[in-house]
Amino acid sequence: MEPNLTLFYALSFLIAVVAFAFAAYLYVWVKKQRTVNKRIIEVSKLIKEGANTFMTREYKVLAVFALIVAVILFVLMPTPIWAEGASVMDHVLMSVSYIIGAVLSAIAGKIGIMVAALSNARCAEAAQQGIKPSFLIGFRGGAVMGLLVVGCALFGVAGVLLIVGDASLLLGFSFGASSLALFAKAGGGIFTKTADVAADITGKVELGIPEDDPRNPAVIADNVGDNVGDVAGMGADLFDSNVAAMVSALVIAQGLTGEWANVSMVFCYSMLGLLSSIIGIATARIGKNGSPTRALNSSTYVTTGIFLVLSALVTVIFEGFSWRIWGASTTGLLVGTIIGIATDYFTDDSKPIVKKCAHASASGPAFTVLSGTAYGFISALPAMVGIAVSALIAYTLCAPMGDGYALFGIAMAAVGMLSTVAMIISNDAYGPIVDNARGLAEMGDLGEETIRIADELDSAGNTVKAVTKGFSIGAAGLTVISLLGAFMSEVNAAIEAAGRTDFITGFNVMDPTVFFGILVGAAVPAVFSALLILGVDKNAQRMVAEIHRQFNSIRGLREGTAKPEYDKCIDIATSGALRELLPAGAVAIVATIAVGFIGGPAAVGGFLVGNIVSGLLLSLFMSNAGGLWDNSKKYVESGHEGGKGSEAHKAAVIGDTVGDPYKDTAGPSINTQITVVSLVASLCSSLFVAFSIFG
Amino acid sequence: MEPNLTLFYALSFLIAVVAFAFAAYLYVWVKKQRTVNKRIIEVSKLIKEGANTFMTREYKVLAVFALIVAVILFVLMPTPIWAEGASVMDHVLMSVSYIIGAVLSAIAGKIGIMVAALSNARCAEAAQQGIKPSFLIGFRGGAVMGLLVVGCALFGVAGVLLIVGDASLLLGFSFGASSLALFAKAGGGIFTKTADVAADITGKVELGIPEDDPRNPAVIADNVGDNVGDVAGMGADLFDSNVAAMVSALVIAQGLTGEWANVSMVFCYSMLGLLSSIIGIATARIGKNGSPTRALNSSTYVTTGIFLVLSALVTVIFEGFSWRIWGASTTGLLVGTIIGIATDYFTDDSKPIVKKCAHASASGPAFTVLSGTAYGFISALPAMVGIAVSALIAYTLCAPMGDGYALFGIAMAAVGMLSTVAMIISNDAYGPIVDNARGLAEMGDLGEETIRIADELDSAGNTVKAVTKGFSIGAAGLTVISLLGAFMSEVNAAIEAAGRTDFITGFNVMDPTVFFGILVGAAVPAVFSALLILGVDKNAQRMVAEIHRQFNSIRGLREGTAKPEYDKCIDIATSGALRELLPAGAVAIVATIAVGFIGGPAAVGGFLVGNIVSGLLLSLFMSNAGGLWDNSKKYVESGHEGGKGSEAHKAAVIGDTVGDPYKDTAGPSINTQITVVSLVASLCSSLFVAFSIFG
Repeated sequence: MEPNLTLFYALSFLIAVVAFAFAAYLYVWVKKQRTVNKRIIEVSKLIKEGANTFMTREYKVLAVFALIVAVILFVLMPTPIWAEGASVMDHVLMSVSYIIGAVLSAIAGKIGIMVAALSNARCAEAAQQGIKPSFLIGFRGGAVMGLLVVGCALFGVAGVLLIVGDASLLLGFSFGASSLALFAKAGGGIFTKTADVAADITGKVELGIPEDDPRNPAVIADNVGDNVGDVAGMGADLFDSNVAAMVSALVIAQGLTGEWANVSMVFCYSMLGLLSSIIGIATARIGKNGSPTRALNSSTYVTTGIFLVLSALVTVIFEGFSWRIWGASTTGLLVGTIIGIATDYFTDDSKPIVKKCAHASASGPAFTVLSGTAYGFISALPAMVGIAVSALIAYTLCAPMGDGYALFGIAMAAVGMLSTVAMIISNDAYGPIVDNARGLAEMGDLGEETIRIADELDSAGNTVKAVTKGFSIGAAGLTVISLLGAFMSEVNAAIEAAGRTDFITGFNVMDPTVFFGILVGAAVPAVFSALLILGVDKNAQRMVAEIHRQFNSIRGLREGTAKPEYDKCIDIATSGALRELLPAGAVAIVATIAVGFIGGPAAVGGFLVGNIVSGLLLSLFMSNAGGLWDNSKKYVESGHEGGKGSEAHKAAVIGDTVGDPYKDTAGPSINTQITVVSLVASLCSSLFVAFSIFG
Repeated sequence: MEPNLTLFYALSFLIAVVAFAFAAYLYVWVKKQRTVNKRIIEVSKLIKEGANTFMTREYKVLAVFALIVAVILFVLMPTPIWAEGASVMDHVLMSVSYIIGAVLSAIAGKIGIMVAALSNARCAEAAQQGIKPSFLIGFRGGAVMGLLVVGCALFGVAGVLLIVGDASLLLGFSFGASSLALFAKAGGGIFTKTADVAADITGKVELGIPEDDPRNPAVIADNVGDNVGDVAGMGADLFDSNVAAMVSALVIAQGLTGEWANVSMVFCYSMLGLLSSIIGIATARIGKNGSPTRALNSSTYVTTGIFLVLSALVTVIFEGFSWRIWGASTTGLLVGTIIGIATDYFTDDSKPIVKKCAHASASGPAFTVLSGTAYGFISALPAMVGIAVSALIAYTLCAPMGDGYALFGIAMAAVGMLSTVAMIISNDAYGPIVDNARGLAEMGDLGEETIRIADELDSAGNTVKAVTKGFSIGAAGLTVISLLGAFMSEVNAAIEAAGRTDFITGFNVMDPTVFFGILVGAAVPAVFSALLILGVDKNAQRMVAEIHRQFNSIRGLREGTAKPEYDKCIDIATSGALRELLPAGAVAIVATIAVGFIGGPAAVGGFLVGNIVSGLLLSLFMSNAGGLWDNSKKYVESGHEGGKGSEAHKAAVIGDTVGDPYKDTAGPSINTQITVVSLVASLCSSLFVAFSIFG
């Protein structure tokens, strides 16, 4: 059968709408579940309000930022508006596409947070009836987020492309998604860790009260943080990756012979991935006393299996759908799974590495830190090799198809790796919901057995999180390789528009301008993550001071007869998150532009490569080391190496605190930083072509 | 005047001989100083014996390793011996040149250790007479090492090139130097930190006895470690960098038009650098109550000034000596100084960063670690940008001279940055000598005032060390860029030898085989340093167990009436160092060869780039973070943030322990790892050209 692009547009919209409808059904289902415990209802409301406070403030700042960027885009992109032959319509479309990208991401995040805040209380109460109903609420709450994010991405990309007709203008859409992700992920990451660290220091360490104790003024901010960082931030991050993967594949497809079959293929694969995820989510089951980890994993495998079969099927049916591309996409998906398994090996407490790190803690905190750092560095190897090998295989498979197909193959490997992303987000969003539920169960005094069940659900969330993080970093790695290709296309378009013919065919590392870019680019993720870590540190100090103030000035707080001022802590976390985020984001963007004006497009090409490589390395290192420390602490707490209260436990807690901003602030934000600078580079390419000192 | 290569060979030998003679004079001068304190003489003898034990064992293992490598080189290099047109003589010369490189480095290390062991006791006793005589002994002892290392490098490179006549065969010599540096630096680094960490844990923490207490069985091993790690290891490292910089400049010069003027220039600059250092060392002075830091810095500046004048002078005198090359070399030297100053900013305790890290310690050890990590990452930026900018300036200056001159300019920037290396090594070797002297002053009960003086000398050593480390990492960065050029030349030579014409002109990052190499190459320094850190950890555990055994089984040890078995601890440090070093070295070498056979020369080119970039980043991060933690601890100990015994102090000690293997094992070894893989790549290039899966 001949592929028909209109068919795939229609199908993309259809599946997106099905995803929305299914999400709405799940939302209603979750909402129907009963809540009776007054304390839980009250706290859950506080969490919801806190999350809303942050999101509203964040979106306000973002709105100003996005408007400024939209104006800049309008003036300068795709070519400067004063340049000859510039089409005003293209400028308008670029800005509008940017705003749509940001708005769609914001909507998905906002609704996701609402559902999460709804699910956690119901999940906690359902744990009284056993693991099955409680699991289902957590999972379905998360699934709403997964379906919405991917539905919006597919709907948005297809819709915008249908209107603008030129994939290059989709770079604006992708940049909108990235801008939002930078705020949501890095800002949310600073928020959540500020609250977490401050609550731990004052609560557990200074006052000796348990985690989630309602007397701690930071406890609500901590729970809010789980939602804004892990639900909204993670959702925005994967929305961004998903859009970037599709857009870079589309930009490359547009320049190939047999263009429309390839464009169709991008939509077809994305749509089938979403369809498979819908089936996977709908069929997710758990036995009465079943293992939640197994339930989460098996629905992932079901989704993957369905996608592989469906994508093979369309390759048989449609002419021009190549088996080579199918191979590239399948390679991406399988390598994603392998990276996930490798990550799991380094962070799962039933595997040897966590035990070794816990054992090192018995010699003192310095050894916890050294051991986690060392294994964190080693854990980057399988993912780096995995990304490298999948790129190489995709290239080798697709290169014989013609000029440009090698790069398209890599882009499709990224699309393949992210095909099941709706399922991945569902699993990931499940984590903070059940984490919150555990806290609520404690605050609502639901009894030991309920807390035990909540604990089991929470632990499954942590295990699955490692795998999804591996997936998202792997996909980001492949996507940015294709964004590099998109950057090159944009540079050549700018060269052509300038009436020149000195087109570039790549970036030669023996060219010192390229090498200059590589070195500077490699330093940027290090500085970016350092600024985020310092931001968390500074902000946590502010919150600790506020908590001390409350304990000193509010009578009866220590005894539990007076209520703390939760909103003050939420306020500090919110304003600090936005304030500390800006220097980090500015460094990345300013460095990109400075390198471009110093060394020209060649230096920027190098800059992106250096940025990708060191970004992937640091991101994997930080995410995995953080996960390893977290689980080592839990392993010690479960009675090993002396258990709770032992010296090993103290050391493990220190490791966990070091790991907090690693794994939840800096590590996952680096992904977004990489995408943002790649897109800034593509968008500014015509400026770099027109002017640079050494270029 | 027309430059005459014979003249420069003659002058190189002459200056090298002058350096040897001056070193001999200083050696005799140091030896003449009196030692009377029995305890000091005894302990100093133990240190000397311990160092000899390690060096002998190390050199035995090395001899076997070097012989095997020499045979491999003989069979495979420059082209496989069975290849058509292979000259047996070239094969012999390659192997012999390798062995000479290793042996010269070993001799310099061995003599350096001897002098250091001689100087430390004399330095300690002279401190009773005041700072002036004590400083001079420490400085002149270090200078022997500096003069020897650079003299051997100049003599060796000139001698081997004179005999073999082809700079490519010098790659063997350079590889010999690198092999030894890998053992000396990484092995020595494991040795020294094993002993340091084990001595601290058992002594300061468990038993509550002071540092350098003679009852601690690890105390001698700790002092030995300062010598084998910091003196011999650092010397071998800079011998390696110095040789690599000269050799890569020579390999590139050989392919240029006006070849011999350029070859002359390499020797001329190296020779003038050594001459300037001799003058700088000879004129080093300190007032009766002068500042040792100022004395060390001012002799560095004197040396730099003399070199700049002399190198400008020869550029005036000799035809074909270009001002552009002089500019490149001067840029290298100045950027080296700037990197040093930037490093100093992050690690000097009179500057704000150390104070901030010390202040963070007041909130607990997790914040010490986070703050040091964050500033360590930021500290990498100026050096990375500095290296990038100096490469770019050198390129821009020299590119107009003709094909290949751009790369030659970068190589000469590295030669310029390392021109004053004899002075740098002198300053660096001064550090461990006065550090040992401080320990000896304590063990010999020389009184408070003497210990105070020794402390002041020691602190100057730490400050200066930061600057020299910045220098050596910067130079390594520039050198490996030119080694990348050398690799490309070798690949093209191999392609020509294979009768093919598909010469390469660079490595395009858009080629997925190159990108594959970049990703894998970037992961290697992370894994390499992780294995070294884990090695220190494992080995320290073994030594702690041995110390516990001695305290439990030797009666009177705790009371000071019986002597500990120092040699057992030295033995553990020695055998552990060699055992733990091998996996790390093997990973780096095997990865290089595997990437070559998978992706061919293009993948290896990418591999080297990834390796350089992530290696520089991690090396700077680890060295600087370690120095920062060390000085933060000292800053707290000098009475800030609560001083000794406070919670901040405990946290700062934990930071320092984390930093120990960072700054003295992993960080500085990465330099050597980068050089080793660059040379392995160059040496195996003909194999990769002949066979690879995807290449």
